Amino acid sequence: LVKRRDLDRHGLQQRYASGELPWPVGSEDWERAAAEVLPPGVFDWIAGGAGEELTLRANREAFRRRRLRPRMLTGAGHPSTAVDIAGTRCPAPFLLAPIGGQGLAHPEGELATARAAAALEVPMIVSTAASHAMEDIAAQMKGRPAWYQLYWISDKEVTQSFIARALNSGYEAIVLTVDSPVVGWRDRDRRNDYIPFLEGDGIAQYASDPVFRSRLPQSPDRDPAAAGAAVVRMFPNLALSWDDLAWLRDRVPVPLFVKGILRGDDALRARAAGFDGFIVSNHGGRQLDGAIASLDALVEVRAAVGDDAVVLVDGGIRRGPDVVKALALGADAVLVGRPYLYGLAVGGGAGVERVLGVLLEEIHHTFALMGLGSPADIEPSLVAPPP
Amino acid sequence: LVKRRDLDRHGLQQRYASGELPWPVGSEDWERAAAEVLPPGVFDWIAGGAGEELTLRANREAFRRRRLRPRMLTGAGHPSTAVDIAGTRCPAPFLLAPIGGQGLAHPEGELATARAAAALEVPMIVSTAASHAMEDIAAQMKGRPAWYQLYWISDKEVTQSFIARALNSGYEAIVLTVDSPVVGWRDRDRRNDYIPFLEGDGIAQYASDPVFRSRLPQSPDRDPAAAGAAVVRMFPNLALSWDDLAWLRDRVPVPLFVKGILRGDDALRARAAGFDGFIVSNHGGRQLDGAIASLDALVEVRAAVGDDAVVLVDGGIRRGPDVVKALALGADAVLVGRPYLYGLAVGGGAGVERVLGVLLEEIHHTFALMGLGSPADIEPSLVAPPP
Amino acid sequence: LVKRRDLDRHGLQQRYASGELPWPVGSEDWERAAAEVLPPGVFDWIAGGAGEELTLRANREAFRRRRLRPRMLTGAGHPSTAVDIAGTRCPAPFLLAPIGGQGLAHPEGELATARAAAALEVPMIVSTAASHAMEDIAAQMKGRPAWYQLYWISDKEVTQSFIARALNSGYEAIVLTVDSPVVGWRDRDRRNDYIPFLEGDGIAQYASDPVFRSRLPQSPDRDPAAAGAAVVRMFPNLALSWDDLAWLRDRVPVPLFVKGILRGDDALRARAAGFDGFIVSNHGGRQLDGAIASLDALVEVRAAVGDDAVVLVDGGIRRGPDVVKALALGADAVLVGRPYLYGLAVGGGAGVERVLGVLLEEIHHTFALMGLGSPADIEPSLVAPPP
Amino acid sequence: LVKRRDLDRHGLQQRYASGELPWPVGSEDWERAAAEVLPPGVFDWIAGGAGEELTLRANREAFRRRRLRPRMLTGAGHPSTAVDIAGTRCPAPFLLAPIGGQGLAHPEGELATARAAAALEVPMIVSTAASHAMEDIAAQMKGRPAWYQLYWISDKEVTQSFIARALNSGYEAIVLTVDSPVVGWRDRDRRNDYIPFLEGDGIAQYASDPVFRSRLPQSPDRDPAAAGAAVVRMFPNLALSWDDLAWLRDRVPVPLFVKGILRGDDALRARAAGFDGFIVSNHGGRQLDGAIASLDALVEVRAAVGDDAVVLVDGGIRRGPDVVKALALGADAVLVGRPYLYGLAVGGGAGVERVLGVLLEEIHHTFALMGLGSPADIEPSLVAPPP
Repeated sequence: LVKRRDLDRHGLQQRYASGELPWPVGSEDWERAAAEVLPPGVFDWIAGGAGEELTLRANREAFRRRRLRPRMLTGAGHPSTAVDIAGTRCPAPFLLAPIGGQGLAHPEGELATARAAAALEVPMIVSTAASHAMEDIAAQMKGRPAWYQLYWISDKEVTQSFIARALNSGYEAIVLTVDSPVVGWRDRDRRNDYIPFLEGDGIAQYASDPVFRSRLPQSPDRDPAAAGAAVVRMFPNLALSWDDLAWLRDRVPVPLFVKGILRGDDALRARAAGFDGFIVSNHGGRQLDGAIASLDALVEVRAAVGDDAVVLVDGGIRRGPDVVKALALGADAVLVGRPYLYGLAVGGGAGVERVLGVLLEEIHHTFALMGLGSPADIEPSLVAPPP
Repeated sequence: LVKRRDLDRHGLQQRYASGELPWPVGSEDWERAAAEVLPPGVFDWIAGGAGEELTLRANREAFRRRRLRPRMLTGAGHPSTAVDIAGTRCPAPFLLAPIGGQGLAHPEGELATARAAAALEVPMIVSTAASHAMEDIAAQMKGRPAWYQLYWISDKEVTQSFIARALNSGYEAIVLTVDSPVVGWRDRDRRNDYIPFLEGDGIAQYASDPVFRSRLPQSPDRDPAAAGAAVVRMFPNLALSWDDLAWLRDRVPVPLFVKGILRGDDALRARAAGFDGFIVSNHGGRQLDGAIASLDALVEVRAAVGDDAVVLVDGGIRRGPDVVKALALGADAVLVGRPYLYGLAVGGGAGVERVLGVLLEEIHHTFALMGLGSPADIEPSLVAPPP
Repeated sequence: LVKRRDLDRHGLQQRYASGELPWPVGSEDWERAAAEVLPPGVFDWIAGGAGEELTLRANREAFRRRRLRPRMLTGAGHPSTAVDIAGTRCPAPFLLAPIGGQGLAHPEGELATARAAAALEVPMIVSTAASHAMEDIAAQMKGRPAWYQLYWISDKEVTQSFIARALNSGYEAIVLTVDSPVVGWRDRDRRNDYIPFLEGDGIAQYASDPVFRSRLPQSPDRDPAAAGAAVVRMFPNLALSWDDLAWLRDRVPVPLFVKGILRGDDALRARAAGFDGFIVSNHGGRQLDGAIASLDALVEVRAAVGDDAVVLVDGGIRRGPDVVKALALGADAVLVGRPYLYGLAVGGGAGVERVLGVLLEEIHHTFALMGLGSPADIEPSLVAPPP
Repeated sequence: LVKRRDLDRHGLQQRYASGELPWPVGSEDWERAAAEVLPPGVFDWIAGGAGEELTLRANREAFRRRRLRPRMLTGAGHPSTAVDIAGTRCPAPFLLAPIGGQGLAHPEGELATARAAAALEVPMIVSTAASHAMEDIAAQMKGRPAWYQLYWISDKEVTQSFIARALNSGYEAIVLTVDSPVVGWRDRDRRNDYIPFLEGDGIAQYASDPVFRSRLPQSPDRDPAAAGAAVVRMFPNLALSWDDLAWLRDRVPVPLFVKGILRGDDALRARAAGFDGFIVSNHGGRQLDGAIASLDALVEVRAAVGDDAVVLVDGGIRRGPDVVKALALGADAVLVGRPYLYGLAVGGGAGVERVLGVLLEEIHHTFALMGLGSPADIEPSLVAPPP
């Protein structure tokens, strides 16, 4: 059970990126390829979920159980899949979900992801747990839209510094993740005895932050593991409540999303706290094992907040039809996570571009087969209840 | 991932057709045998479905979940299974579903299928994507009934030419497939990098059509791949709408069916557009992955169009009891697809005859065990809801 | 695909019967052991079902899905499991289902089964397709109760002769099987190309019958296969209806049961035809594949005929708790089939005794754990609906 | 099929306890490790259930099917998981379920379990079938809370003696198990031909009891198998009824629980008989195979007895989220069984401590992720119905 960091030990990343090996096809193919490329501990950290992985599986099954009821001969012509989400233009109704520690999947990490996202104009949500500083990631995007995902850790001044940096770097929206007052309990990571942060991975926002650095006896550059341990100590924030969020709202002049809502009543609390949008999510099954599938929670959240609110959903989205299912059940757009990280693991930035390109095509294709002219044509009757 | 076309590389087709090898028994046996006979890429093209194959599996499961409630001692005597569908006599309530590119399964392709269908008097629906010209196929049938399946591609004059040829060739009905404004997204074919049309397979209607030929710089006989590419370019027709169908209705003096309907409201639109019959279908799970199982959609379509309309269904029909289930849930008859193509792959025309003969026997046998004297005795109480 | 009749090719039957090998434990263990003892074709004939075996599996699953709701501390004391079914005393609420051709499982066939049944006082229902003449089987029972199962084949005089012989032999009730106007379509037998009757197995009632013998050009003893072929020709009787049954009722002065009912309306027709009891059955999944599970049909049949009628059920009963489930859902008793035939295959008469002894113990044990003093204590609240 | 008692034949227990081997992680890992450590017959006796193990599996599936609906940002701070159950303090809402014969899993048996439980202050329920005398077990706890589980066997004076000893030993509550008028019918044990009691295992309460000893011709120390046989003879008590319980109630001045209730009406009878609390249980699937999953029965029992009664549940609890599910569905606390016995098997007392420590952490963690400040915050809306 040693820590395994020998990235791309078989030289596969290079062979995929160079075209020597053909790209995987379906999302399961990408996952299998990533499992071959990555050290087992890293693959498990990416692919795994909390506990028995009940929620990890439930997320995907919730999509598989729903059935589409397409319309024929609508005469819609070539569909446009583009949407505007809180002022951010998306070529199709999805954004890149925030994922930390992408340097574990590929040396270029979030920098490669950002370039690929920018190339296809897909908005990226950058994680607080990224392997690169948010300013460096933003620089790779050359003005293409990105949002910033925030953990509100127990050191409020560090949090405040992150907000300021994100706004300065041009992030167009802030996403506060609220489902992680503590880190999830993941069997795979415990079996592998592998917590990236404790090895100094995924702490780039902290290591690059002057306030955080002032908390440490020595530079994170000299002792990244000690810095990681400090992050882990600061991370839990069980006292945070909806009442505290007025402080945040006051400091965020851009659209503010809450991520991790699974109940309608919580969505109403979030709206009362001034959030502009809601991301229905169980953190990809990585936090509370046994939590309801996010697609199953979506209907309730949409019903609670009404038609005008912006509602996104993540967890289990792998293919073009999934996007239409989510929108028919109430989402304005979805977040896609592990698929692009498998792309990064398999082929770096070229792999991410490939995954995103195929997904864009699949969504366009699904629209065409369902007679949809644009996302605005999607309505609840397009999904049948599970048989 | 090369293209594999070495048909019957093990000489199995001949050994089956000659009786040296015994015929497979159940439909799964035929599928397994076909997988041994055919090059993997061809088998995948036949057996596979779109995306994750959710709908491919759902089609079959929808039949398996339903349970029959037979009547005993009805004194019905030896059943007659024959029905009349829009004026076409069927020895049992099924027709051969249109399948393109049958030359990939066996050198004689649709010619062998047509002879076998004619021998057993089972009506065949000939595909626009067939490997042989519709006139040549019709010639093999010696006056036995056949219908013609039409794709309305973006070149309307080619479509018009096909209609004229089909009527001239004596096809008794026209089936317009509406679920394919674009070609499905099939993982297996993408893994195999195998699109038959791009290799000049399944373009015989086009290659034999004077209008189409006039569109090409050189004869399809000299450059079939270029012709295939032209077909692929012309194929998508996203602008077609119900309003356009008056044009078709005016040109089709024989019964006109719409194939690919999965919703009651679309069936009503089709009726308003003048169609005589409705085929509930998701294209055998080959177009929109995640689409509702066709048997699940059947009840809604029948309820929408009322008792007098002609409603057929395809997708997942493999055995005699499936036919009774479909009729009890509202169909007048069914289309059977892959099973006869596996017969063709395994033993050519003799294989098709075997498959059709067994299916006719199975249907007769199911009628006997259920106390049915004829298809007219079938009513909804013969099927129990899934437990 | 040869016929395989080399019974007990490994000498296992003797080793089990002698105690050298320990008896199997659970019903799945017995089935596995029988699969080792028997030639594959014979095992398949016993274990298999019609078509895809959907109903074979559904029968068992219907029991597994139901959950028991036991009562504690009822103070019932040591339970009595005995019941009286139409005047026949059963030590527990089950009888041996009629199974033909038991000579295929063990040389002694029904003779051994009859001795074992008599030893434990479990009533046996002797099949028209038995491997021994009904008089010889009855002689082994030494006055213990047995019923006779009748197929009403198309030669009415042969049927009439069977009835007379059964009454003369002391059978206490007649069971008319109505679900077999033709023989089931069983994939396994077709794969094995094995129909016992065509080899002269299971035709002992016919071969020993003077009327039947008068129909043949030569003695069945000299050409058993020709006799088998004659049985197969006479067997189908699709013209039989409820109206014909007055003739039977007039000739049967003992209780008369109908076996193979799966609908409430058919049960009412059977009652109108004068039947004393109803056996809800799909022939162990061997006739109509896709037929409703017999346990699922039981509730409807009981509701149709009311509380006073005698209702039995078979199909899928393997363990003690199954008996309580069936009785709670409306049965007065059950028939047990394949389990005792596996006992016969594994260890001859000693094997049947073992299986029956264990089942009696299991039923007693289940009664004890549920606080039941007798079958009369069983009522619907003891079974929960599937979760 | 010999008896296998060669405990820890591979020396694994020592290697785990010493830290040479890392502890297993998830509950399935512990079970697998125990299967390696223990002789197969002993592992089967622990892990197995009655009959086909339908109820064993149903218990676990009932938890897996339910989904949690967590609240975010409740500001609850660090949760307290402690509860008071009938006056007994629990650090989290669980107690150790009574399990007999722990000497089979580890030489120190219940003595090691008791020390581990006491170290973590988790209340232990000591079984009548323990491998050590209740006084010896109590002595290991040094005043930490424990309850005593009682079988009311057919020799009432022995039962009375056990009650007196338990009260003298300081057990804070008595749990009467009512689901075992006879011992369950377990296929695995019958395959292994292994009944611990018949080998003198798990009879320590009896062997140490003066009344029981007076029943034997010679000392249990000299002939433990004969003593075991006497226990097996005395065990069944089918005549016991709710009316008899006034006698028990009069003799038990501490809280009195009934264990093994699966119906609301039985819970009402238990309340009328003076019980203070109710344990919804099917004996871990070891008694009546096919019994309803205990979690499914919990809702009915809680509804019957009202909000004020103390209701516990066991069967299938493996992870932190299971505890919250059970409490949301009506339990005040749960019993945990096999998990700690796997801990004992793998690493003796250190293994039990590890299992309990991890479970305490998991529960705390689940509370944190669900926004719970204490068990009092748990209410029905935290669980979604199965999808």
